[in-house]
Amino acid sequence: MNTSTDKHFAQRINNVPPSFIREILKVTQQSDIISFAGGLPYEKLFPIEQIKAASQRAFTHHGTQLLQYSNTEGDLQLRQWIAARYQRQNLSINAEDILITNGSQQALDLLGKVFINKGDAVVIENPGYLGALQAFQLYQAKFLTVSIDDNGMDISQLQHRLASNNSKLIYTVPNFQNPTGISYSEDNRRAVALEVAKTDSYLIQDDPYGELRFSGEEKSNFMSLLPQQTILLGSFSKTIAPALRLGWMVAPAAVMKKLIIAKQAADLHSSSLAQAILYQYLQDNNVEAHLERLCRYYGQQKIVMENAIKRYFPKSTQVTNPEGGLFLWCRLDKKVSTSALFKTSIQQKVAFVPGESFYTDNIEKNTMRLNYSGASPERIEKGIRILGNVITSY
Amino acid sequence: MNTSTDKHFAQRINNVPPSFIREILKVTQQSDIISFAGGLPYEKLFPIEQIKAASQRAFTHHGTQLLQYSNTEGDLQLRQWIAARYQRQNLSINAEDILITNGSQQALDLLGKVFINKGDAVVIENPGYLGALQAFQLYQAKFLTVSIDDNGMDISQLQHRLASNNSKLIYTVPNFQNPTGISYSEDNRRAVALEVAKTDSYLIQDDPYGELRFSGEEKSNFMSLLPQQTILLGSFSKTIAPALRLGWMVAPAAVMKKLIIAKQAADLHSSSLAQAILYQYLQDNNVEAHLERLCRYYGQQKIVMENAIKRYFPKSTQVTNPEGGLFLWCRLDKKVSTSALFKTSIQQKVAFVPGESFYTDNIEKNTMRLNYSGASPERIEKGIRILGNVITSY
Repeated sequence: MNTSTDKHFAQRINNVPPSFIREILKVTQQSDIISFAGGLPYEKLFPIEQIKAASQRAFTHHGTQLLQYSNTEGDLQLRQWIAARYQRQNLSINAEDILITNGSQQALDLLGKVFINKGDAVVIENPGYLGALQAFQLYQAKFLTVSIDDNGMDISQLQHRLASNNSKLIYTVPNFQNPTGISYSEDNRRAVALEVAKTDSYLIQDDPYGELRFSGEEKSNFMSLLPQQTILLGSFSKTIAPALRLGWMVAPAAVMKKLIIAKQAADLHSSSLAQAILYQYLQDNNVEAHLERLCRYYGQQKIVMENAIKRYFPKSTQVTNPEGGLFLWCRLDKKVSTSALFKTSIQQKVAFVPGESFYTDNIEKNTMRLNYSGASPERIEKGIRILGNVITSY
Repeated sequence: MNTSTDKHFAQRINNVPPSFIREILKVTQQSDIISFAGGLPYEKLFPIEQIKAASQRAFTHHGTQLLQYSNTEGDLQLRQWIAARYQRQNLSINAEDILITNGSQQALDLLGKVFINKGDAVVIENPGYLGALQAFQLYQAKFLTVSIDDNGMDISQLQHRLASNNSKLIYTVPNFQNPTGISYSEDNRRAVALEVAKTDSYLIQDDPYGELRFSGEEKSNFMSLLPQQTILLGSFSKTIAPALRLGWMVAPAAVMKKLIIAKQAADLHSSSLAQAILYQYLQDNNVEAHLERLCRYYGQQKIVMENAIKRYFPKSTQVTNPEGGLFLWCRLDKKVSTSALFKTSIQQKVAFVPGESFYTDNIEKNTMRLNYSGASPERIEKGIRILGNVITSY
């Protein structure tokens, strides 16, 4: 006798609209569309033969136990591998500080579950990563935005936000930020850490792209600047393969205890088959060489896009200059609405994400996010030319 | 400057203690312990060579696209396979009614997220499945218990619960229930459906063991008795392999829409590599023959345990008579506390789960859950003999 109405559902879900980006991505899956919309790694760079071989060895190595239930924290050897890599960067992180998750997205969901009561404040970047907004929105967080520019967070805004509210979490993507591609400068990181240290909040460093640096200097990890208050999220989606759905989180012991309870209630543990295949791949291959190849490739794709933008977009266009990651960010003439542009450009088989989707307040309608990792250099050149024409005729 | 106290965390997580079962399972992982505590499938029955072969074919078949991001709903072919199987049981279920999840546990978490506001009532079986309690507890549900006996739910209690409260969800495991192993009779199912039809609540049929029937007659699925109000959960963990972490949920369209939003925020999608390997396995093998083998085996293990209990446990012991699944349930003399027994039996290297862990109210301390799927017949015989001695000397 059931006809569902909103009253059937929890408040939290009635507040969340279906993701606009998800709708865009559906449209852009057709192969005749040149898509700068998603955040997909370049498929040709997947180490598919190596992962295929690793999957066979994982079966041989583990036997039937490979297919059994496993522990909530995740494969110990895999966590040791991740910890050892941090230790080589002089970060004091051990296997027991690490929880394996289904990509970074699950880490965000678990953080929401563990920290956020309805109405609790979370500081976020503006513009910022939609997946984090969506995860926290489901726990009915109140968002406090801090603007970002080419150097990172606006420190006086951050001070203001932290002074006026008891924020539980400060969410950051300091390396090759999504959507803008900018990185926090060394000074900016230190200033952010200084402000957060005055509070009892936790800073989340979401770092899915950190290893995809193709130019510039490595910057400090918040885990070294603010070890007691940093929660660090990592992912194998951008470096090895998204289909594994494997990422991790590093958190102080008191937080980890709660995260493990939440993870157990969420899905017992991440696929131990996927974890075993991944660990075998990491053991059997030169991962550093693979990462260097990715960085070389994405660096080239970024330059191709940058040059094409210079050639085909109006001279007034401002473009960020990412030193890594998958995205750059364009700011067009103030009169332009990129949502209106999108309608024309998708008819001409080129997709991007209108910038307004990423803002929580102070929306700049003349912005757009462009992904350069998903398409070949030829298609990047062609797509940007078409997009340039669309803008010019606007 | 952070020293975590409870005030840092969300109320929901501060209310949830670490799972007692989880602590038991840690103890029982040592190989010298005969464990009747977990709910593990028998490892020797895993189709490991077939899954290994399927994993190779999945790589060959899909190429690099196998490793890319995929859609939230889950692999379409896999969902079609699941739907076709239901259709052969005359259930009107299509691929678009199905969402792939990380085992049934994630389905429970998503249901909590989509339905439960703090204080919302959820009807549960008493004793009942702890994983469901834990998932819903994190959304601060209020639990209303309904006792179960060998025939299913106590209908007058159910009437009383539904009349006095506006329950959003009614959680059931009608086939080979966890922890008791009982199944709802056909009459009981019809009576439950009749009561739920008078409300605008949803009934959850959690059915991880439904295909593991080794005796008795197939009973009606709530999806056929109450199609508008049933949410059906299935899992490959008990039939193929837990390490895949793959299950599914079937829900009415209005509910499915919300579930997909929640799933996207939770982890974007379940491992598409694991889904592709599983689908390949299902395509290439005689799944029905595999299931028959499992049923034959578990049926034999159950009889071995039943006979050993008759031989070694006190004559006053009451034992349920499961027609499938992984568990049976013992009720000892009223004076016995199985928690006290546990301390002795674990010293003698035999583990079980004291029944009181599964009760939300009206705790019966003289009960225990025994799993017969995880151990060989020889170890079942030996373990029950030791346990019988422990009980007799109590």
